[in-house]
Amino acid sequence: MKLLEERILKDGNILGDNILKVDIFLTHQVDFQLMQEIGQVFADSYAQAGITKVVTIEASGIAPAIYSAQALNVPMIFAKKHKNITMTEGILTAEVYSFTKQVTSTVSIASKFLSKDDKVLIIDDFLANGQAAKGLIEIITQAGSQVVGVGIVIEKSFQDGRQVLEDMGVQVTSLARIKNFENGQLNFMEADA
Amino acid sequence: MKLLEERILKDGNILGDNILKVDIFLTHQVDFQLMQEIGQVFADSYAQAGITKVVTIEASGIAPAIYSAQALNVPMIFAKKHKNITMTEGILTAEVYSFTKQVTSTVSIASKFLSKDDKVLIIDDFLANGQAAKGLIEIITQAGSQVVGVGIVIEKSFQDGRQVLEDMGVQVTSLARIKNFENGQLNFMEADA
Repeated sequence: MKLLEERILKDGNILGDNILKVDIFLTHQVDFQLMQEIGQVFADSYAQAGITKVVTIEASGIAPAIYSAQALNVPMIFAKKHKNITMTEGILTAEVYSFTKQVTSTVSIASKFLSKDDKVLIIDDFLANGQAAKGLIEIITQAGSQVVGVGIVIEKSFQDGRQVLEDMGVQVTSLARIKNFENGQLNFMEADA
Repeated sequence: MKLLEERILKDGNILGDNILKVDIFLTHQVDFQLMQEIGQVFADSYAQAGITKVVTIEASGIAPAIYSAQALNVPMIFAKKHKNITMTEGILTAEVYSFTKQVTSTVSIASKFLSKDDKVLIIDDFLANGQAAKGLIEIITQAGSQVVGVGIVIEKSFQDGRQVLEDMGVQVTSLARIKNFENGQLNFMEADA
């Protein structure tokens, strides 16, 4: 997605060896117009797939996911990273290890929102090691639903997340794919949409 | 907001004495169409106020906030409840006590996103004790920005959050106001919009 790549080059900040900070338009301050266009591109990519639900994980995935859901005209569900006193019913969970935070957390979705008839598009802001998306795939599979694809806003293609998800038999659609960071410069490889 | 009240009566679940669970359309699964209409009502209420930023707090506030930002044509910022390794610059923080979770957490916004010229509309999903919104007002005031109003999707009017915010001199606009729960029934009082 050309517009997204241009925006990353304009507003992204590279921290250290492998951290890209995009808090100006995605992870802290959010540009609704860009999110709307991102949602439309994901919806176009999966227009023929019969998607019935969009699933993401709190919090940065919510904005691109809600616009994807709108463009596909289906509900959006965001998985919870933290336990909540109102989650009392049947809950599906998966353990997710975060390499950046070095902690394991339990990600959960209420089972009533996923059925055997659901075809799910997962949306997330970043793909690095793929652990969050892997956890979501595990939960959705537990529910008997089908994961049709994973839509990623920014993929760090030098990490192995894409391989992890493809090894699970799931298609990955990334709108920007970062090949590497070289001398404070960011190089893209060809994106999926 | 009639449409919202009807939806709460149809899909809300009352747990115990004072918990309303609306995970079917707001706090877990999200109905984009209702969120869009909610965003439009908030934008109409503050159309003449010169709003330059919408601020919310992760995670359930994000969907109504992004559609409010869209309808007002301004950026949305979501405050963070948890520390993040990419937040390295000037950060404004406030301590927020959660009565339901009985923990104090630090809420933060990067200072670069708020300036003395900003007029801010805060959006949140629930107003109960008002501690989260109070923390956001403190942060926004630290930045020298003006809080024009607080837009709330569902207010528990039998708790003192509204009074806390009005005592800080801030206007509260709630789309549904719950007067009480009586014998498993929910009673509304007149909403602000």
